[in-house]
Amino acid sequence: MDPLMVYQPPPFDRPPLCDSPCARLVPAPADGIAPELFHATSNFPEYVNLAGYGWTLAPESRMDAVIVVSEGSLAVTEPRRLRAGDLVVVGRSENGEEGIFVHPDGFSRHHASADKFIFRSRGTRETPFSRSYDDLYRILRHDREHGSIVWVLGPAVSFDKDSRNAMQGLIENGYCHALLAGNALATHDLEAARFGTGLGQDIYNQQLVPLGHYHHLDVISAARAAGSIKAYLHQAGLTDGIMHACEKHAIPYVLAGSIRDDGPLPGVIGDAYAAQDAMRQHARRATTVIAMATQLHAIAFGNMVPSYRVEADGTVRPVFFFIVDMSEFSADKLANRGSAQAQAILTNAQDFIVNLWNNLQT
Amino acid sequence: MDPLMVYQPPPFDRPPLCDSPCARLVPAPADGIAPELFHATSNFPEYVNLAGYGWTLAPESRMDAVIVVSEGSLAVTEPRRLRAGDLVVVGRSENGEEGIFVHPDGFSRHHASADKFIFRSRGTRETPFSRSYDDLYRILRHDREHGSIVWVLGPAVSFDKDSRNAMQGLIENGYCHALLAGNALATHDLEAARFGTGLGQDIYNQQLVPLGHYHHLDVISAARAAGSIKAYLHQAGLTDGIMHACEKHAIPYVLAGSIRDDGPLPGVIGDAYAAQDAMRQHARRATTVIAMATQLHAIAFGNMVPSYRVEADGTVRPVFFFIVDMSEFSADKLANRGSAQAQAILTNAQDFIVNLWNNLQT
Amino acid sequence: MDPLMVYQPPPFDRPPLCDSPCARLVPAPADGIAPELFHATSNFPEYVNLAGYGWTLAPESRMDAVIVVSEGSLAVTEPRRLRAGDLVVVGRSENGEEGIFVHPDGFSRHHASADKFIFRSRGTRETPFSRSYDDLYRILRHDREHGSIVWVLGPAVSFDKDSRNAMQGLIENGYCHALLAGNALATHDLEAARFGTGLGQDIYNQQLVPLGHYHHLDVISAARAAGSIKAYLHQAGLTDGIMHACEKHAIPYVLAGSIRDDGPLPGVIGDAYAAQDAMRQHARRATTVIAMATQLHAIAFGNMVPSYRVEADGTVRPVFFFIVDMSEFSADKLANRGSAQAQAILTNAQDFIVNLWNNLQT
Amino acid sequence: MDPLMVYQPPPFDRPPLCDSPCARLVPAPADGIAPELFHATSNFPEYVNLAGYGWTLAPESRMDAVIVVSEGSLAVTEPRRLRAGDLVVVGRSENGEEGIFVHPDGFSRHHASADKFIFRSRGTRETPFSRSYDDLYRILRHDREHGSIVWVLGPAVSFDKDSRNAMQGLIENGYCHALLAGNALATHDLEAARFGTGLGQDIYNQQLVPLGHYHHLDVISAARAAGSIKAYLHQAGLTDGIMHACEKHAIPYVLAGSIRDDGPLPGVIGDAYAAQDAMRQHARRATTVIAMATQLHAIAFGNMVPSYRVEADGTVRPVFFFIVDMSEFSADKLANRGSAQAQAILTNAQDFIVNLWNNLQT
Repeated sequence: MDPLMVYQPPPFDRPPLCDSPCARLVPAPADGIAPELFHATSNFPEYVNLAGYGWTLAPESRMDAVIVVSEGSLAVTEPRRLRAGDLVVVGRSENGEEGIFVHPDGFSRHHASADKFIFRSRGTRETPFSRSYDDLYRILRHDREHGSIVWVLGPAVSFDKDSRNAMQGLIENGYCHALLAGNALATHDLEAARFGTGLGQDIYNQQLVPLGHYHHLDVISAARAAGSIKAYLHQAGLTDGIMHACEKHAIPYVLAGSIRDDGPLPGVIGDAYAAQDAMRQHARRATTVIAMATQLHAIAFGNMVPSYRVEADGTVRPVFFFIVDMSEFSADKLANRGSAQAQAILTNAQDFIVNLWNNLQT
Repeated sequence: MDPLMVYQPPPFDRPPLCDSPCARLVPAPADGIAPELFHATSNFPEYVNLAGYGWTLAPESRMDAVIVVSEGSLAVTEPRRLRAGDLVVVGRSENGEEGIFVHPDGFSRHHASADKFIFRSRGTRETPFSRSYDDLYRILRHDREHGSIVWVLGPAVSFDKDSRNAMQGLIENGYCHALLAGNALATHDLEAARFGTGLGQDIYNQQLVPLGHYHHLDVISAARAAGSIKAYLHQAGLTDGIMHACEKHAIPYVLAGSIRDDGPLPGVIGDAYAAQDAMRQHARRATTVIAMATQLHAIAFGNMVPSYRVEADGTVRPVFFFIVDMSEFSADKLANRGSAQAQAILTNAQDFIVNLWNNLQT
Repeated sequence: MDPLMVYQPPPFDRPPLCDSPCARLVPAPADGIAPELFHATSNFPEYVNLAGYGWTLAPESRMDAVIVVSEGSLAVTEPRRLRAGDLVVVGRSENGEEGIFVHPDGFSRHHASADKFIFRSRGTRETPFSRSYDDLYRILRHDREHGSIVWVLGPAVSFDKDSRNAMQGLIENGYCHALLAGNALATHDLEAARFGTGLGQDIYNQQLVPLGHYHHLDVISAARAAGSIKAYLHQAGLTDGIMHACEKHAIPYVLAGSIRDDGPLPGVIGDAYAAQDAMRQHARRATTVIAMATQLHAIAFGNMVPSYRVEADGTVRPVFFFIVDMSEFSADKLANRGSAQAQAILTNAQDFIVNLWNNLQT
Repeated sequence: MDPLMVYQPPPFDRPPLCDSPCARLVPAPADGIAPELFHATSNFPEYVNLAGYGWTLAPESRMDAVIVVSEGSLAVTEPRRLRAGDLVVVGRSENGEEGIFVHPDGFSRHHASADKFIFRSRGTRETPFSRSYDDLYRILRHDREHGSIVWVLGPAVSFDKDSRNAMQGLIENGYCHALLAGNALATHDLEAARFGTGLGQDIYNQQLVPLGHYHHLDVISAARAAGSIKAYLHQAGLTDGIMHACEKHAIPYVLAGSIRDDGPLPGVIGDAYAAQDAMRQHARRATTVIAMATQLHAIAFGNMVPSYRVEADGTVRPVFFFIVDMSEFSADKLANRGSAQAQAILTNAQDFIVNLWNNLQT
């Protein structure tokens, strides 16, 4: 099976779809308010039968948004961003009965065994991941040139020397087109660059350094005084790590603020919904997402990412979403929030990233 | 041991403390920027030897903040809230060498066994919790009248009928002086009130309801149209649940926005640092905190909460912090972020809260 | 839905089943060796079309065993217990093609939602358990008189005062017809009876007692000298706990030895396969199983327990299997080893058992 | 710090140790029964002051055993193996008061930080493991020639193609002097050799193979008929995997039976205490232990392994014990059962072993 699978559009020329009515459009009653019975999108390909245009594929989708129609084209928008009067698709059936078709089966999938009695129907830490890795290597090599690889990082990867080096290597070698994280990842990465520690613990030998609990505060303070992460890196003469690699190679990043933050660092977006909007820009372009060691950001971005992408030439390709986490709960929670197609690799982020880099750098 | 333990102040009248110099104060060089070598606070009682005033206890503390001095009194402030010229305590020793004394041992504690070889030195899910529960019952009965009980809730408690009822009962009977949560807890609670489901799953019998994935969106949409949670409860005629109990009994709550949010509901604070400021108001008053099934909010609030409180009459009492979670990792992470005194009860939030309510309602 | 659900036998009078051939029987080639292409049983109801007798239901089943036929009746047996010449059912199809029919759908089940896009398709710690508890209360009240309730216990329940008391109460009040555990559960329970500790830690207040690491060794030593658990309880004058309740009320128990054991206590079965045989006796009678805080014993017994039981009057009822554990992994692993029908309640065994006892004792 | 650390014996020539009395010896009252107040060993170096011989180091130790004295030499023995009349060391102090000295600090250790307030005092999945890996590489390279490396394996490593290959490579290249596991590891490894699956799931691409739930049963059946694993490998023409590597290179292994077993395979030791005895032989020689993805075997063997080894020339070196697991709970439980010196690497066994092999094969 080629991981870049072929897409099969729905059979719109056959019943019942060829007989579907056009979708009903209702204006938004006020700014930020959807009309009654609005259609909420999934992250699957969704088609709307538009009067005068026929079945039209949304150019991208996301969970729990609405579809706004304008001159024959569709825009998938969060309800909070609606303007009064926007024409919103209404209807809650998904098989064409109201001119809406949700298409989860466009890409070929594994077939379930027909046996009545089977073992190992659930993915766990004991699931074999050799193939997942091989798929991932192939996908990343492909998407380095022909896609957009988005990394969603919790702080763990910055706490360990080898994994931090590996992430830096991946960024420097074109395997990262955008980085999404929080204030903590950036802070700990800068602390590692400046002091060789993470929250005061040596990132190589695990020693707790005296007064190490000041390190991240001093980094934040100096970065705030410098005015930007870029300026701080320069002033402090720092030349390694994740943030440095992003700045050096002009890789865009979004640092979303949270209630846990110290500081924050300059550039962190404090408003959650402004941060969503910034992340969504990358969701629209993503072809492969790797979300690692962060439940919050993984689910947040999982909600935003379509399961497909329409290329410039009109072909439809899958968007791959990998979640790397230590617990079945995190992977299940992501699935329970609607991203059932995400592939889980249950392991420590440190090993995962070192593994990846070992294979991709050759 | 009485859980409301007696506080022993440091021996300031004896060497070496009686010989400590006064603390050095340096003005903040700019808004939001601390001076070099600023002293960062812990959540333990901290004393500063002020010229002309002597050893002075900070009225409350929090992790990773600075101490601003004004006319003999101390204020513990996040660095981002500094104004240029504020006089900040400087110095990084903690035993009086620079006029700063951190006092983690003011309350009596368990004594470690002297045996060289012991079992069970670490807290896990197998640790016996009978005493923790009994302590908690006693503390909550005491603090209902004489303290401020703050609940920090992840969404889990609203997904289950019995636990949601229990939480409602605790609020209605005076066991909650403030509630801190996110958009999800409130949304799921309102969905349960309106539809009897949580993200479309019946909160009693686990059935997935047809089109249930619209429920939370419809609730959010209606609440946004209503303009406030209170107005929505009234318009929709809803009379049960956590949010209803808060509104009915005028219990203050803070709903902090996050990048995972749908909506958000009206009243959710989108800016992470404005949300921190709102939460901090409750941290200053808290005498007992129960943080349940939320790593993000537990650590965020754990950072803000002092380990002690100075009563109106000047006595110092402990602030109790319980974290209720399913994984050792969450409890360890809270400790690794500085809240080592937090007591973990490792269990499902559903059982915990039902247990609590069964015992406290009688 | 009544938890004691009505069983629907397969439609043997209709095609294709009415046209099925008789099953093929092949003698075992040697002691402990099954013939080629032997049919391996599941824990579902299994029927064999016997020449001269027609479709015959196995009186009970288990995973990964073989069916031995003798004079028109079926016996489900572990391959290691075969005798050379035993007539074994052969064939690996399960829909009647070779005279074998596996019937997993005899009891009504929850129906999956037809929506293409749903949340919460997977069971996790956030799944609502109110109904599971209510079902369990009802089932246990029923089976106290009309069934056989088997408890499978890891040591955790004996480490905590309240939960140990609760388990004792359940046994003393008829809610336990058999107890399956290991050397550790019994040892820790006896240590609690004798010293009030578990591995040296006070089971109420968590204190580590000086020289407490000798407690379990002294208990084991004294019990071995006494010759049996019963004799030890008497000699030491112990009158509480789980083992005491079993002895007092003549509840049978199986203590299976393991490589982790100290001692072992007298009565522990050191040979794993002799222990399996002893456990299997209880599996055959079980109507409800509660496996708590033990992955090893839960999966071992899960393999042995049929999903149904044929009552004396010939009616077929379900056997309920609850697994109580803190991690999704344990529940998933049980499912991945074939016990997919087991219901998981993800919580701490301490709270679970206290909860149960609070509800059942009234 | 060199991982092969220098041992410092206790100062027996200085008070108080030079004034210690000789240890008291009491005969065992019966077979398998220790005398009252017997001294129970830890896994630390333990010394006994023997009349006529002076302070004598036990040649190896283990948890919860007794010390038998015979002609000036010490033997550390499980109480169940005592013979009536054996002279057993009695006394429960550990600082020489009764002629017994337990010496946990013989090897230099990390020093704790003196700061009152620190982050990251607990080991979790976020602890940096780069140094742990580097230490491990160095230790394994050293011990390949000069020590005894014992692997304790749960089944997970045999479920995945890359990790199974890696383990095979380690065995074939001298990095394994003994293998301890259960029936499942061997069964799944043989299933992989024969069918390319683990419990019916392809070990490379995760597909569930039709009738795959028969694979392990057919392997077991054929191996039982063949009479030994070695004979089965030969008959079936299998030439890869973990068991094959052990047989080919004459690496001893112990397969301990359990109540979860199908079969069992020939060679599995069904009696738990006979299996303990077999494992203990390897514990006495071990210099490095890696216990991976098995709580049961890790704790069992952790109980048996001394923390030190006396070399032929009388020098004392540390025994390294690494536990590789996905959950903090397993590592904490090992520590809570007395093996506090074990180093945890919290990750998936698959990645760990692939990592190791990638580094050691070059």
